[in-house]
Amino acid sequence: MVSAERVTVIDESVPAADSSPPLDLHGLVKELYPINRSLTGSGVRGTLAIIGRYIDLQIHEVKSGTAVLDWHVPMEWNIRGGTITSMDGRRLVDFAAHNLHVLGYSKPVEGVFSRSELAQHVHTLPDQPDLIPYRTGYYADNWGFCLPHSLWQSMTDDQYRVRIDSEIAPGSLTYGEFFLPGETSDEILVTCHICHPSLANDNLSGIAVMTALAMRQAGRKRRLGLRFLFLPATIGAITWLDRNEARLDRIKHGLVLTCIGDPAGFHYKQSRSGADIDRAVAHVLRHSGHPYEIMPFNPYGYDERQFCSPGFDLPVGCLMRSVHGTFPEYHTSADNPDFVKPEALAQSYLTIGTILSLLDNDRIYLRVDGRGEPQLGRRGLYRAIAGQREAGGVTQMDLLWFLNLADGNHSLLDMAIRADIPFARLEAAARLALEASLVEEKS
Amino acid sequence: MVSAERVTVIDESVPAADSSPPLDLHGLVKELYPINRSLTGSGVRGTLAIIGRYIDLQIHEVKSGTAVLDWHVPMEWNIRGGTITSMDGRRLVDFAAHNLHVLGYSKPVEGVFSRSELAQHVHTLPDQPDLIPYRTGYYADNWGFCLPHSLWQSMTDDQYRVRIDSEIAPGSLTYGEFFLPGETSDEILVTCHICHPSLANDNLSGIAVMTALAMRQAGRKRRLGLRFLFLPATIGAITWLDRNEARLDRIKHGLVLTCIGDPAGFHYKQSRSGADIDRAVAHVLRHSGHPYEIMPFNPYGYDERQFCSPGFDLPVGCLMRSVHGTFPEYHTSADNPDFVKPEALAQSYLTIGTILSLLDNDRIYLRVDGRGEPQLGRRGLYRAIAGQREAGGVTQMDLLWFLNLADGNHSLLDMAIRADIPFARLEAAARLALEASLVEEKS
Amino acid sequence: MVSAERVTVIDESVPAADSSPPLDLHGLVKELYPINRSLTGSGVRGTLAIIGRYIDLQIHEVKSGTAVLDWHVPMEWNIRGGTITSMDGRRLVDFAAHNLHVLGYSKPVEGVFSRSELAQHVHTLPDQPDLIPYRTGYYADNWGFCLPHSLWQSMTDDQYRVRIDSEIAPGSLTYGEFFLPGETSDEILVTCHICHPSLANDNLSGIAVMTALAMRQAGRKRRLGLRFLFLPATIGAITWLDRNEARLDRIKHGLVLTCIGDPAGFHYKQSRSGADIDRAVAHVLRHSGHPYEIMPFNPYGYDERQFCSPGFDLPVGCLMRSVHGTFPEYHTSADNPDFVKPEALAQSYLTIGTILSLLDNDRIYLRVDGRGEPQLGRRGLYRAIAGQREAGGVTQMDLLWFLNLADGNHSLLDMAIRADIPFARLEAAARLALEASLVEEKS
Repeated sequence: MVSAERVTVIDESVPAADSSPPLDLHGLVKELYPINRSLTGSGVRGTLAIIGRYIDLQIHEVKSGTAVLDWHVPMEWNIRGGTITSMDGRRLVDFAAHNLHVLGYSKPVEGVFSRSELAQHVHTLPDQPDLIPYRTGYYADNWGFCLPHSLWQSMTDDQYRVRIDSEIAPGSLTYGEFFLPGETSDEILVTCHICHPSLANDNLSGIAVMTALAMRQAGRKRRLGLRFLFLPATIGAITWLDRNEARLDRIKHGLVLTCIGDPAGFHYKQSRSGADIDRAVAHVLRHSGHPYEIMPFNPYGYDERQFCSPGFDLPVGCLMRSVHGTFPEYHTSADNPDFVKPEALAQSYLTIGTILSLLDNDRIYLRVDGRGEPQLGRRGLYRAIAGQREAGGVTQMDLLWFLNLADGNHSLLDMAIRADIPFARLEAAARLALEASLVEEKS
Repeated sequence: MVSAERVTVIDESVPAADSSPPLDLHGLVKELYPINRSLTGSGVRGTLAIIGRYIDLQIHEVKSGTAVLDWHVPMEWNIRGGTITSMDGRRLVDFAAHNLHVLGYSKPVEGVFSRSELAQHVHTLPDQPDLIPYRTGYYADNWGFCLPHSLWQSMTDDQYRVRIDSEIAPGSLTYGEFFLPGETSDEILVTCHICHPSLANDNLSGIAVMTALAMRQAGRKRRLGLRFLFLPATIGAITWLDRNEARLDRIKHGLVLTCIGDPAGFHYKQSRSGADIDRAVAHVLRHSGHPYEIMPFNPYGYDERQFCSPGFDLPVGCLMRSVHGTFPEYHTSADNPDFVKPEALAQSYLTIGTILSLLDNDRIYLRVDGRGEPQLGRRGLYRAIAGQREAGGVTQMDLLWFLNLADGNHSLLDMAIRADIPFARLEAAARLALEASLVEEKS
Repeated sequence: MVSAERVTVIDESVPAADSSPPLDLHGLVKELYPINRSLTGSGVRGTLAIIGRYIDLQIHEVKSGTAVLDWHVPMEWNIRGGTITSMDGRRLVDFAAHNLHVLGYSKPVEGVFSRSELAQHVHTLPDQPDLIPYRTGYYADNWGFCLPHSLWQSMTDDQYRVRIDSEIAPGSLTYGEFFLPGETSDEILVTCHICHPSLANDNLSGIAVMTALAMRQAGRKRRLGLRFLFLPATIGAITWLDRNEARLDRIKHGLVLTCIGDPAGFHYKQSRSGADIDRAVAHVLRHSGHPYEIMPFNPYGYDERQFCSPGFDLPVGCLMRSVHGTFPEYHTSADNPDFVKPEALAQSYLTIGTILSLLDNDRIYLRVDGRGEPQLGRRGLYRAIAGQREAGGVTQMDLLWFLNLADGNHSLLDMAIRADIPFARLEAAARLALEASLVEEKS
């Protein structure tokens, strides 16, 4: 008996080489975890040095005090230690044990303080009494400690000996950049923040996945340039924007990566003014099989705040798994390498790779002769016996959709969204049609 | 311990002076209730005279027969009395007892009629047998009585003595106008109808609230002129439109007020072609805490029918609580002062005041330098310790929304809708930003 | 007592002459059922000859081999018989018993085949073992039989005698066209396919209903020309398009009719680029009282595939009851005259007639003076006593909607959709307003 089948088989899955990350994502998270990062300082440099083992990262140092847009590059902060000790010499809180213990950008202090004086400098989480909170005091000329609320409650002495051995001094702000040129001057921007100390999901996950993506993409031919930025949040983005203002019109798509290592579903925050990046991410997530949610733009979050400020309004969205501020581990000592899962990291890597590939491969095609359907049969694109069945690869339906919408007005992404067919299948249909000289690429 | 707080506290509630009406709304309804109003006549004049105690109302008299658009100003109707008496002298129906008893614009009649002759002139509500219906016979050269169905059924005599002591004669149509100029020639139009006799919600509620709004606004500086019209329905609006046709392009927003004294949720009927008034009312109602419903435009209702006719197509909507024709008291003797509640009147007063204030204060702002976020900290607009918490006043989020959307293309109302934040909070954020020279008002 | 009533009574139902089809629809389906149709050949000619009894059909013959767009007109196929016989002479499968038994466009064959050889040419439906499938082998240089799976399973002999007495030879492709001119050069296109052998819903239903519609419309005055095409699917449409390419801009609306004889709810597949036909069909179905579903365009289906190809992109949708491929009788011997119901055919006839009438009567009106409402009373369009009640005919609300939207920008269909009022009632309102000189038709 004869039965109708699909025209040809195209494997929808990403090539095997792509499906597994080129480095141990979770291993990199664990390696970077103990380093004390902040807006500036040796921890940032050490982090970029480790990333530099995988990709040929360009390191930028920008001097303290440099004017950048409405801001100035801050003093550099470095810290060697910080302790709260009982008067009888017991070390109760120690930066060496966990770098979250000291408020970011704490100035040096040494002395004996009454409990009530110390209380003005202590941050705890009464609702999560066993966790250390993450707090910073940028630009605040202050000092402070973060500790478990239970520990603080057990500290009932009248006086404590306090010491923070830190330095706030002229130096520089450090960020990393890795650019892969494309055939055109158009670019995709991918960024993550690198200013958080021992926090794994926020944002060692972003650092690890972005490093792996950059490494994988390095060997490839591409239409669009790919620019990866490893930035201290806010001030790093502002500094980069200030120094690259004349070339921002090259950025056609952008993605900020953060909190992409936990096993929650994906959350994508749209760009400010709507853009192809929003449609591409939504399309990929829709066909990813993973749970996801699309969130409208808002002006709070990560560096999309800067890229999407009204004077730039770049087409940049933000991809997350759990959303900042909504998961209990957020900005606490519970956001540690155990909270981040190898499978989630790999899935994020794969999903973002699919998004980047889609953006690079999106094209507009035009039927050579669009009057009626072409006779597929004599071109070997139609099974002789009528009737067709959906299958894993290009179906006749995919090909019909492609041929119908190849009118010079629909990009492959437009088609994929209208037909609700994964982009890769329309891409494959385009290849078949191109080989059969039924369409041409619109220049 | 240190904990993050809102930037500053702005009281979202309307200033205390505004929150209580400047006159006894329910008292005014009760005072106006017994007066017999119609399209024309002494009842309208008496009503406007009472309103004139509160505001400096301009009274217009337009002669009967004057051509106004497709219409002519009707003869003036006045009535002194109307009775149905049994042949043995019992007064069964008496205009003096309730002015709804006589059909509006009844011509004079005196005589004895058989029950079946009289039946041609009697209006009742079989489904609401104890209520007097409200009916009119404008332009009909007719006479009639309205009475409870139960009463009519008890009237089984063969003959009745009928008398209506009325006059339909050349005179004039009367309407009231109160204009408060603004800094610009643009205007907001607020209207209500004044042609219904003893009906409280429809529309003594509108008259009372509009009077109070006009009174309160009188002492204020404003950008937009405010024009309050007290009009006999349909013919009054047509007359005003005819006489003011050359200046209609000044009307940027308009609101017809009717049935706003009962305790039902608000109902807002949109303008014909969509306008800022629709967005403003929906926004205010959304954040009012009161139940409400937005209804699409339709060509039946109150004077928005005239303002939204195709040749004018003005941006005028209609605000109601209960909707005409949908509540059992509508156009019956049950629409009396007890049906109208002081709290509902006050709430309507407050809500409409908020709408008018929003329209007057809506502005477009432009960031002086929109490249990236401004550094709020050095301007005292950012708490030194990161982390923020929503609060009653301006939150950091409000300020970020404002600064992100202050691109010269978003009005405060646009922002409030996109951010889903009450207008007043964005207004306060705008003040902060203006004081900090971060934005300028777009001229 | 006086009670308010509708302005005038307009019967919403279609005139009685229209409501019953001018021919026995189910009878025609039964008469055409036994004929063996295909893309070409004597069965198509015989079918068109029967249709020609009702309407003055123009028959086109296009020679085999003629180039039409990307295709060529195929050889003509005719068949006299086809059998599978057991070696002992029992006739097991016979084209004479059911024309679905032979694969469409089977080439001639005669000989003895082993069961396994024969199996390569046998089509069955294992899931519907008692039904004969419908299969074709256009352009395939093949032969084959279609039989119940149960029969095939009972055929366990080693060898069978096979004979197909057919001919594939130069000849011509045949299609029918019936054009009714209108006052303008604009046209409505209505098409059905005529290439299926003994299948009743797909598409004798379309043939019968289209014939009746053409017959009924023949005697009428119309604004838009009406072009009815009876086409072999795909190649027929392509042939017609090739030969009429220069005049395609006349087609303002188009409808492909298929599977409209079964009792399922209506399914309308929208045109490729959105058009008035989509809005008209949706409006008529919404007010038809029948269940229905609107489906977005897709490039698979009937000849809308050709009309909606990117080079033509005509405003053509497809009306169905059951959707091809989704009902178990589809493309089997169960799609026989019993599956098609007289009432369903009549309902389809009526519904499509209403759509065609709407398209022809859609107009744009403009108020002579749109400033305010016209005074309806002095024109006899308003009951003297205020208050109105919806009724079967034109209500005051219909008239108000019409007068409000007669601004030169809204067609009657636009109005009907916005007001959610059946088109016929707005049409009647338009007549009243036109008679009263309140509007004029926009030229």
